[in-house]
Amino acid sequence: MALLEDTIGAIGALDEEATAAARRRQAQLTKPPGSLGRLEEISIQVAGIQRTARPDVTRKVIFVLAGDHGVVAEGVSGYPQDVTCQMLANFAAGGAAINVLARQLGARVVVADLGAAGDAPPCPEVIVKKVARGTRNLAAGPAMTRDEARRSVEAGIELFASARPLDLAGAGDMGIGNTTAAAAIIAACTGRPVGEVTGRGTGIDDARLARKVSVIERALATNHPDPADALDVLAKLGGFEIGGIAGVILAAAAQRVPVMVDGVISSAGALVAAGLAPRSVPFMIAGHLSVEPGHRAALAHLGLTPVLDLDMRLGEGTGGAIAMHVVEAAVRTLNEMATFSEAGIAGAH
Amino acid sequence: MALLEDTIGAIGALDEEATAAARRRQAQLTKPPGSLGRLEEISIQVAGIQRTARPDVTRKVIFVLAGDHGVVAEGVSGYPQDVTCQMLANFAAGGAAINVLARQLGARVVVADLGAAGDAPPCPEVIVKKVARGTRNLAAGPAMTRDEARRSVEAGIELFASARPLDLAGAGDMGIGNTTAAAAIIAACTGRPVGEVTGRGTGIDDARLARKVSVIERALATNHPDPADALDVLAKLGGFEIGGIAGVILAAAAQRVPVMVDGVISSAGALVAAGLAPRSVPFMIAGHLSVEPGHRAALAHLGLTPVLDLDMRLGEGTGGAIAMHVVEAAVRTLNEMATFSEAGIAGAH
Repeated sequence: MALLEDTIGAIGALDEEATAAARRRQAQLTKPPGSLGRLEEISIQVAGIQRTARPDVTRKVIFVLAGDHGVVAEGVSGYPQDVTCQMLANFAAGGAAINVLARQLGARVVVADLGAAGDAPPCPEVIVKKVARGTRNLAAGPAMTRDEARRSVEAGIELFASARPLDLAGAGDMGIGNTTAAAAIIAACTGRPVGEVTGRGTGIDDARLARKVSVIERALATNHPDPADALDVLAKLGGFEIGGIAGVILAAAAQRVPVMVDGVISSAGALVAAGLAPRSVPFMIAGHLSVEPGHRAALAHLGLTPVLDLDMRLGEGTGGAIAMHVVEAAVRTLNEMATFSEAGIAGAH
Repeated sequence: MALLEDTIGAIGALDEEATAAARRRQAQLTKPPGSLGRLEEISIQVAGIQRTARPDVTRKVIFVLAGDHGVVAEGVSGYPQDVTCQMLANFAAGGAAINVLARQLGARVVVADLGAAGDAPPCPEVIVKKVARGTRNLAAGPAMTRDEARRSVEAGIELFASARPLDLAGAGDMGIGNTTAAAAIIAACTGRPVGEVTGRGTGIDDARLARKVSVIERALATNHPDPADALDVLAKLGGFEIGGIAGVILAAAAQRVPVMVDGVISSAGALVAAGLAPRSVPFMIAGHLSVEPGHRAALAHLGLTPVLDLDMRLGEGTGGAIAMHVVEAAVRTLNEMATFSEAGIAGAH
């Protein structure tokens, strides 16, 4: 009945026995202790998530969630709203960046329309779970109702459930105008100044950037989102795809599946998830550091260190997808390397 | 007859037509221009290297070259010299980190003994091309003769030739004591103070680190390496595996194959290659930034920006191997993404 509350209630802690066993094994592998750096840390985290010293990330699923944003009426984006649906068709046809990266990884892409304003051509590759046809303009009032916010999060939880079994998840986005919503959520959750967390999104110029900052300031002043109430923040500022990403993250944590946070939109979803369930944070891995300035603030607030820094700002889950190779490298070295005693090698003296 | 000079003479420039064509295609793909950041730059570089707007990095080979160092007599390492040969056996058995990472990549590992002091058990997986049984102690005089230095570079060139055809190369190392040789080469080539470019290698303590710095200072004062003569630097300070890495890099550049530079040892080899043939530098991709302090200095001197920063310091080509996933992502997005017109998507307005 209460899918959201049940999911939150199912989130546990990292397994200390498994993390300790993975840490012991790392010290026995044929390399100087600590020399695999971040890979060792990630392997230990994934061991704790999956409750085993020999974790497995073979089955990878990347959730790409789309939604439209009423705030585009304020002229905050350089692209027309139609692009959201056009990109849904591109995801379905396998022509977008995330499709290419998923093929390289051997990952499955789950594409869902959580609230595009229009309709993509019907096809089996796009799951339609529209909460509404786009949010309302957050500069003029709440972007959605509290019930719509909950439904968007629960849609993400349901998508995750229907994609099981899986060993490693990623959460990405598509939605014209959504860097405006994400920056607003990041400002509300972190308390950082709007000008500091607002960026150029798809590549807007100085004049449009100034307008975007003032739109977000107006949204915060009009809506008074309560940073202690993540559903309130999501309802007043958010996008349906951002709520869906929060749902995917909560479901992953509840099912003990490590989940890649991608760029600035995905990290806004992670802030909502963390607000709803602080225990979900240890299940997250920050895939990369986006060029968008709000991303750094969001990751710092979550206490996450990005795996990659490649000057990317595309969304779709692309940064998280590339970082999945690093997570797989971490897990495979833990599992497959010989120990000093197996290899008959002398240790340090 | 003059393998080294012939190889250097065969190195050309990046193909401007191919880089321009790749850059044009990047602007037409279904993403905001520039939003794939570093991936776009790498794809354009690889296009220029391979002389085609549709490059291919399917066939990957990682060269792991081993050698021993007479300077271990000074007590600069925490591990006994036997470990070099023991690790050759571990590479042959597939139990080392680089083997695991290569399996993940679908890459081939070419392991060669360019100058271990002992002998690994004979096996088809280890190519024996010993220049000598370890270098001499660089703190007391030249580590090798000028002829040995040349032979080590030419051994790398021959190894590359025997591994063809390949589309993407990596160059890694194994050798107890080799961070001492690498730091000495980096200090000699960059002019940076020894204390600034010398690190803890496999994990030595403060006392041993101080000894290592003074050993390198003694080596520079005793040998007077000429930074304008890369073979002189290699002969006086180097390792056979470092010369071999330089040879692999030169051969890759001559054959128009992009080559991943790994950590501090590999970048010392890259400095030697760049000294012998400055035109080889545009064919290099710096895989990662090592924890070893000399690595940053070496990459800055080469003008290379590392793809990854994962706090690694293992060598073996491991950082370069993980970065190969990013290079492949760069090339595949360039090749496989739909253009705006193919996907029927509106551009920016």
